[in-house]
This record gives sequence, structure tokens and C-alpha cells, in this order.
Amino acid sequence: MLIEPKILKGFRDFLPEKALQRKNIIRILEKTFTSFGFQTIDTPVLEYKEVLLGKGGGETDKQVYAFKDNGKRDVALRFDLTVPFARFMAAHINELSLPFKRYHIDKVWRGENTQKGRYREFIQCDFDIVGLDNASADFEILQLMHSSFKAMGVNNITIKIAHRGIFNNFLTKIKAADKAVEIMRTVDKISKIGKDNVFKILNELTDSDSANNILKYIEPENNFLETLRKITLMSGGESEASNRLYEVYNFMTETGIEDLFSLDPSITRGLDYYTGIVYETFLNDLPTLGSVCSGGRYNNLTSVYTKKNLPGVGSSIGLDRLMAGLDELGLLDKKNQSSSVIVINMDKTLQSYYHKLAAVIRDSGLSCEVYLDTKKIGNQFSFAEKKGIPYAILCGTEEYNSNTVTLKNLLTRENFNKISLNNAISLIKTGKVE
Amino acid sequence: MLIEPKILKGFRDFLPEKALQRKNIIRILEKTFTSFGFQTIDTPVLEYKEVLLGKGGGETDKQVYAFKDNGKRDVALRFDLTVPFARFMAAHINELSLPFKRYHIDKVWRGENTQKGRYREFIQCDFDIVGLDNASADFEILQLMHSSFKAMGVNNITIKIAHRGIFNNFLTKIKAADKAVEIMRTVDKISKIGKDNVFKILNELTDSDSANNILKYIEPENNFLETLRKITLMSGGESEASNRLYEVYNFMTETGIEDLFSLDPSITRGLDYYTGIVYETFLNDLPTLGSVCSGGRYNNLTSVYTKKNLPGVGSSIGLDRLMAGLDELGLLDKKNQSSSVIVINMDKTLQSYYHKLAAVIRDSGLSCEVYLDTKKIGNQFSFAEKKGIPYAILCGTEEYNSNTVTLKNLLTRENFNKISLNNAISLIKTGKVE
Repeated sequence: MLIEPKILKGFRDFLPEKALQRKNIIRILEKTFTSFGFQTIDTPVLEYKEVLLGKGGGETDKQVYAFKDNGKRDVALRFDLTVPFARFMAAHINELSLPFKRYHIDKVWRGENTQKGRYREFIQCDFDIVGLDNASADFEILQLMHSSFKAMGVNNITIKIAHRGIFNNFLTKIKAADKAVEIMRTVDKISKIGKDNVFKILNELTDSDSANNILKYIEPENNFLETLRKITLMSGGESEASNRLYEVYNFMTETGIEDLFSLDPSITRGLDYYTGIVYETFLNDLPTLGSVCSGGRYNNLTSVYTKKNLPGVGSSIGLDRLMAGLDELGLLDKKNQSSSVIVINMDKTLQSYYHKLAAVIRDSGLSCEVYLDTKKIGNQFSFAEKKGIPYAILCGTEEYNSNTVTLKNLLTRENFNKISLNNAISLIKTGKVE
Repeated sequence: MLIEPKILKGFRDFLPEKALQRKNIIRILEKTFTSFGFQTIDTPVLEYKEVLLGKGGGETDKQVYAFKDNGKRDVALRFDLTVPFARFMAAHINELSLPFKRYHIDKVWRGENTQKGRYREFIQCDFDIVGLDNASADFEILQLMHSSFKAMGVNNITIKIAHRGIFNNFLTKIKAADKAVEIMRTVDKISKIGKDNVFKILNELTDSDSANNILKYIEPENNFLETLRKITLMSGGESEASNRLYEVYNFMTETGIEDLFSLDPSITRGLDYYTGIVYETFLNDLPTLGSVCSGGRYNNLTSVYTKKNLPGVGSSIGLDRLMAGLDELGLLDKKNQSSSVIVINMDKTLQSYYHKLAAVIRDSGLSCEVYLDTKKIGNQFSFAEKKGIPYAILCGTEEYNSNTVTLKNLLTRENFNKISLNNAISLIKTGKVE
């Protein structure tokens, strides 16, 4: 009896085209992160459940893939890369130089409801700076977000910034600090549920004066500075938090990257662990997609595991959601070229020679495959076409005896008959004979 | 109360040095696989338990991380990349052109006993050709193994080859075919348990004549051809299986890569699904480490999922075991350079300028980090040294006012005072001023 080759809901197979698109984006990000001196680490996919859920709260619990392993240990699949990173920092603090800048690009799992652009298995691209609580570090994460999207060729974005500390000062001032978590979670939903619904919930949580005040607070003004002035004022005047945000803004203008950033006090991030600056990133052409890169400052994240104070700031690109967005906007590279060259299998007795030719072509730096079957040449050409291979090398008895090959450009159908292999390689690489 | 930041037995954290070593090896392999026209795919980490364990047998079952998810589905973490690939091929056969060459480098999980070089979470690097049953495909996998180890700079290896079909013919001839699976599993252990113990078990399975005969069969002769002649003879003379191995051997000699290969009839691979050629790879300086790259031909692997005949041949590099071996032999690149350049934080008021300088340096193609804290310069230099950063850019008020920087070579302690940033970049890249 056959077993149906099905996969779980919310999980996906990646065929070569999609897999390559994703790998190429990951390579661009790795290169960008590395150019800023960020270093990669790795942590286990599976951890003690207690270690992962020590912090993270009730919302996450239900979504976590948790089970007992064969040794009866309570274990769970990681649901993000931040919690394992906090655990990692606590465990290896003595082996690392601070400030420590790390990136980590890998899969995480959440059993949440599947909907468009949401999967149960997805890739996060995290980058964090640990060991510092200053504007320079806050800024560098924003600068790296700017550079990462630029490197991916995604320029039409808005990175919305806010500061939890200023919001907290404001809530203290209007005597609503005891409801801070609920208020921030409500405000965070404004783009989804609308202003009226947010007012309704805030009114229930506090009173109508406070609710109106909160709505006024989160309304962006004409530009970054005006908004910053307003929230500074509404939060009781200058504070450490507002000064930090001024400083970060100055870094942005002085380095000339302020174009992509806007101050939007409604951004609070749902997660409890943020303590300072927070941000979300939106594709301007697809605002409903949600944030494709979010993060902020968390100064107590490792406190579950260690008494050492380890402040951090970081961000995470939701690669699958970003790719879904880029796909919808037609911005993904559709090219699926498996090789630059195919060696056609013209003569079964010359097959090992074909493998030898391919090895020489590869040594020149080109990717090259041998057609391994003995089908008709027409079939071989259409196989190459389907795979987007631009050049074919043909070698029959005549070419073999004269130590030459025939090069065929599969796009233009142009033939270069009985030329040396070196000339063929040169033609492929430069369009010219050496 | 603090939670201990511990990880599960058999699982590992990778600090930057080790993580980078592994990533670099993976990049070399990806480049090599791609140069042969192999394409990457991705499959879920978590699958239906039935789908993964439909084939694979009792040995594997106990080792699999299996559980019920929140939807009460029986699921399991993949224990290799081969079974998910078979499922993938059955599911997507109509979307792919055959022959299909894929590679897949990613983690798998097995709850086996932890011992040296064995982990419960480890990375496999698989490469397979599906849709063909011929010598050209068998050979190309061997050629790709040859190229992969060469590309990794690992040249002192032996790839031991055998053929299950010839062994089966031999067992039929000596009337022991009904015990084939047990005999092959026994023979496979000869390097671990020794000849005498193998004889003992074979004697119990068959009789002393047969046991002696089998030991004679698996004994390699002076060279590949002599061994091949002997096993051909012992298996009843020329057969499809022996002809295939002759053909593969001719491919190897005609392409000049026969140096690394030897014919060792004791290699059978424990797994049931192999049907033709099989191979294992050993580091000559660490033969007890076990095989670091194994595989073979499997012509019925997808038969669990589909009635379509999909023959395949492939191989898998056990990256973690290989790295453990290379580490022991001192062959791993120990360099842990996080950036080429560090911009020293000399003056707090110039911090945003430092970020700007770093951006220009990065745009030139160099990796560059800004020291984000405000510690003493001596501390900053020792931070850079620990991270293996070779160059520092210093910029105080004087440099800032004259639009210059001071470049310091941290290895030679040489200073280049007040030069233009372009000249500094040129010195770092070429050792010369432009």
C-alpha cells in the first residue's frame, strides 16, 4: 500500500527556483551582516522546554511544539532565535568579548493558525548587539537594517520607530502605567483593527479622557522631529528616553540615512521584553502585509538565566513574509539557471571524455553539467532550455579526433564549429576568442 | 529564580569560530555541487511520522524524535535527508525535469547514544541524481565526491567502493541469499569487530564453508581490477552488476581520478535500500573515525510513495564527523577575523562621523566595524586584537578638521598619519597608496 507523500499544514517544500531565491537572499544578508562585523553562531533546534519558555509568556506557550523526548525530558522546538540567543549569552558570556555582535539565520516553528504569508515553519534573520546600552548601538542596528534592504534591492520601505520608555513616561504621567502592557498591545493593533476599535478598548481599560490622550500621543505629526517634540512634551518633557531618541535621530541625519525612517508612536511591539527603542519595517507598496523586519532594545532578556546585566538591541527579518511580499510585487529574481554549460551526450563511447571536458570547464570557474542520459539530441536541448542553461558543448567523433568542440549558444542558436575548448570557454566568459 | 542556561545532551552551541568554520565548509560544498549543475531544494524539518517511517526499518524507529503535535497529528523530526527527498520526488515528479540532480545541506536529528563525533543534532550534506540507472550517473556522484574533498582541501582520503548486486549474485551462488541482509550487516562491521568475530557470526548464520567463502570474497586484492576480477568470478562470472562496476572503473581511469578510489567488497552499507554500487569515505590518517561520506544506488526508494519507477544514486557527507576529524588533524582554518577594519571611538562627539567613515569603507568592499562603546583606546585595541581585526582607523579632531584619518596596522603597529580615507582603503587593500 502506498503512503501519500503529503506534508503538514503550514509547512512547505521548496523546489529549486524558490529554494535558490531564498538562498540568494540569505547570502546577501550574510554578506551585509558580516560587512558590519557581525558574527554567526548556531544553537540547537531542540531545547529544554523550561529554558525556552522561562520567559515569553502565555501567548507563545500554546503555539510551541513541545513534547517529551525518549529520555522523558520536556523539550521544545525553538519558536524564535532571540530566546535561544539570550540562553547562549548567559552560557558563554566568559568566552565572548563584549560588545558582541551576532547574526543568526535559521528556521523556527510556531503552531499558529496558517494564513497568507504565515507558516508554521519559517526562517528568521536575527542580528543583535549585546553588552551596550547606548545610541551608537541602537543606531547601528537601524543602519544595518537600512543597508540590508538596500543590498536586497528593496528600497521602497518605511522603517517606523518608536520608544517604549517615552511611552511609559507618558502613561505614568496620565496615571495609566499599571495598564501599560494591555495599552501597548492594544495600540499595536491599530493598523489591523482601526482607530475606533482601539478607542473602544482603551476606553474600557482606562477612561475616555485617557483614551483620547493616548490616541493623540500615537498620532504621527508632519515629520520625525515634530512627532518627537510632541511625545517628549506629552510624556512630561525631556528624559533619558527622549534624549536617546534625539541622539539616534541625529546619527541618522548625520550619516544621511534618515530617508527610510519615520517616527510612529503607535509602534510598541507586542512582546514584553522590549525596554527602549522599537521598530517595524513595511513595504510601502504592501502596507497590509505587516512588518517584515522588527526589533528593538531589550535590556533584561538574559535576566532569566543570569544575574549579569546584559543589555541588547537587535532586529529580525521575517524572510518568508518578505519573500511573499517581494513575490507579489514581482521583485523576486525568477532566473533558475542550473548551470552555465551543458555537455551534450552525442556518442555513448565518448561519455567519459564528456565528464573530462566538464571537469576542465568547471576548473575555469564555470558551472557545467554533463547530460547523463542517452536520449535524442533534441530532447537534450529541450532539457537544457527548461533548466535555463545558455550554452551547450557538442563533441562527436570529428571534434574528438581534432581535439575540438562545437559550442552552441542555446539562446541565439549561434554555432561555433570545431574550436578549441579554451576558445569555447573564453567565448562563454567574455564573448570573445582569447 | 534563575533558570540554568543548559542545553540537551548530544546538542551543541556553536560559537563564532566554529560556526564560521562550518559555514565556510558548507559554502565550499554548495559551490562545488552547483558547479556540477546540482540544485538545492528544501523540505520541512517536521513531517508526518508515517511518511518518514514508512520505510527505514526498526533500527531507526527508536532513534526518531516523534510526538503528537497540538493538532494530535503523529509527527517526527527528520532523521536523514534521503527519506524526505524520496517523499519530495514522489510529490513533485511532474514539476521537475528528469534526470534531477539535487543537493540538500541541513540538520537532521537522531536520539542515539552520544559518543565521540556522534551528536543527536547534526548536519548532512546530500547530493543525488534521480531518474537514471546508468554508469554515467554512478560515476558522476563519485566524481563529485572527489571534487568536493579536493575543494575542501582534504586530499588524504580513500573512497571505498563495492557493489551490492555482485554481492547478492555471490550469495545466491553459495545458497545464502535468504540471509543476505544479516550477512551484509555482519560484513559491514568487520573494521569495528574484527575478522574473527565476523567469522563467528557468519558461521552461525550459515556454515563454516560459507563463512570462509564470504571472508575470501570480501578480502581486497592488490588493486581495483584484481579485486573486481575475483568477485566477478566468485559471483558466477560476468553479470549486469559486474559490468556496471567495470564501466564505472573505466570512467574513473579515463578521467584520471582513480587515485582516491579502492574496491573493498566488505563495504555493504547497513541500510536496506541500496541496490547497486555503494561507497564509504575514510580519512587515511584517522581510519577509526568511520566513514565521512557514504552512499550508493537505490532504485526503489520512492516505491513507498509512488508506483513510478525512480532510480537514484547519491551520497552524503557527515559534516560534523568530518569536522571533528579535520579538527583532530589540525586541518581546520582557525582564523576568526570578524572584520578587516575597526573604526576606533576616540571622541564621543564624532561618533556619527565614525559610522559614516565605516559606511564608506564597507562600500569599498571591506568589512568594517565601529567600536560602539566609549572605553579607553587601549581597551579598544585589545578588543580588536582578540577579534583578529588587522587594521584600525583613528580619527580625532585634527584628522576630522583636515578631512583625513590615521591608519594603524594592528599586526605591525605601523602608523600612517593623517592620510585621506581613500588612501587608507587603498593601503588596506593593496598595501599601496593609490
